[in-house]
Amino acid sequence: MINVITSIPELRERVKSWKQEGKSVGLVPTMGFLHEGHQSLMHRAKAENDKVVVSIFVNPMQFGPKEDLASYPRDFERDSQRCAEEGVDVIFHPEATEMYSKNFSSYVDMTGLTEELCGKSRPGHFRGVCTVVSKLFNIVQPNRAYFGEKDAQQLAVIRRMVRDLNIDVSVVGCPIVREADGLAKSSRNSYLDFEQRRAAVCLYRAIQLAQKLVFDGERDGLALASRLKDEIKREPLAKVDYISLVDADSLRPVERIEDRTLCALAVYIGSTRLIDNCTLSV
Amino acid sequence: MINVITSIPELRERVKSWKQEGKSVGLVPTMGFLHEGHQSLMHRAKAENDKVVVSIFVNPMQFGPKEDLASYPRDFERDSQRCAEEGVDVIFHPEATEMYSKNFSSYVDMTGLTEELCGKSRPGHFRGVCTVVSKLFNIVQPNRAYFGEKDAQQLAVIRRMVRDLNIDVSVVGCPIVREADGLAKSSRNSYLDFEQRRAAVCLYRAIQLAQKLVFDGERDGLALASRLKDEIKREPLAKVDYISLVDADSLRPVERIEDRTLCALAVYIGSTRLIDNCTLSV
Repeated sequence: MINVITSIPELRERVKSWKQEGKSVGLVPTMGFLHEGHQSLMHRAKAENDKVVVSIFVNPMQFGPKEDLASYPRDFERDSQRCAEEGVDVIFHPEATEMYSKNFSSYVDMTGLTEELCGKSRPGHFRGVCTVVSKLFNIVQPNRAYFGEKDAQQLAVIRRMVRDLNIDVSVVGCPIVREADGLAKSSRNSYLDFEQRRAAVCLYRAIQLAQKLVFDGERDGLALASRLKDEIKREPLAKVDYISLVDADSLRPVERIEDRTLCALAVYIGSTRLIDNCTLSV
Repeated sequence: MINVITSIPELRERVKSWKQEGKSVGLVPTMGFLHEGHQSLMHRAKAENDKVVVSIFVNPMQFGPKEDLASYPRDFERDSQRCAEEGVDVIFHPEATEMYSKNFSSYVDMTGLTEELCGKSRPGHFRGVCTVVSKLFNIVQPNRAYFGEKDAQQLAVIRRMVRDLNIDVSVVGCPIVREADGLAKSSRNSYLDFEQRRAAVCLYRAIQLAQKLVFDGERDGLALASRLKDEIKREPLAKVDYISLVDADSLRPVERIEDRTLCALAVYIGSTRLIDNCTLSV
């Protein structure tokens, strides 16, 4: 039977007892509404650790005032089932008041990396991510923590935070899981109606085009971004937030595309903002 | 023989081997130029833990551009001797480049608490303190960490950070150690010339006066602060930075003095900024 823990001290005790038995612990931080992408993280965590904790917490601190905190999709029953299928040992499912007590006033943040890409349209988002991930790391003290590569900037930010603050956790990035037509799995895909769902594949088409153009010899970052914008514009339901060719570590735009340059994009389909990315091979 | 470690991975290994033997670890973070105040922290750490690490690191991030980073007093040989006398197991003495690698860009910070008292004249100071203390906590993963009550705001900020970010460390505050005439021990006392040293006792006199006036019935925060300012003004070499009566947790100024109200002051003696405080009993 899968165990659901809502209290921080109780989770700490559980993990402490595992550690005393010499067991390794994997953590998969999520906001719930779990899909096959999350399941791939759990699967890998289970393969690499004796015990696996999945946190399900829709973190208010990483949503802007005009963003979709209230409407963010939730289905705890289905989530529990998916966790059970993957052999997860504990679901950590705290209330917001358990995570953010009265007079909460500390935060973890970053300059540089957080200001590129999604940071431009989501100010404060990565402060919320860094803060909650720091808290989860301190509560669970896992050996390894698993994040999807779909949120490429989040992964880069967390890797940098772990390096800078000497956090004793191995960060494991896992490949994007896609629908049959190529759309990256995302909890936010549930916002899409039938027509929008069809339109949403334009992100993947743009990524495929990027890989093809680079394969054919394109090396100019701006020129490639412009070609991808044109590709997205062919889809009337889509509106580009950004399309960027950036260095995978610094997330700074590159003039010239090199091996392992990151192609990242964010596109609105109606009012739903979707992201996708790929690492280019030259 | 006391062990000096300058590399983060080496210190991690050492602590890991202690933990595997079931040993508890106490950490005393310092900026060196150790005095009897620091020694009282080491002494307590030694009494409460199997192993004691003292970090000696003049943290550039907590100094403002016009502050005394370059001139901050250093005497590693004498520091080592003092640590050896107290039975310290390891001195962690990293270079700045070991603590802040290229492209370092993460930080831990706080709203509210950090904006009061010293935060007003030292913007960014507590960001530097929170960041370096987080790093030291993550590197050493001590059971307990020891801080002096002279830096009352620092202690309150670190307690809040540990609570907010769920850091698994017990923070232990230790009483102020004073010279024979009452001046609080501080590495910065070494900046004072003979006349200034004599003048510096005015901080302690103000604190004693505060305790006396409260004992005699004074409960008005502003009135008391004003009386203390007059007391400091009697000393021509002294210039008040702040004198505040504040709540010990929120550090917000109190109108009415209650039991355990904090009386905190910062005073320039020449160009040397000294701090002192006491917790009032009513």
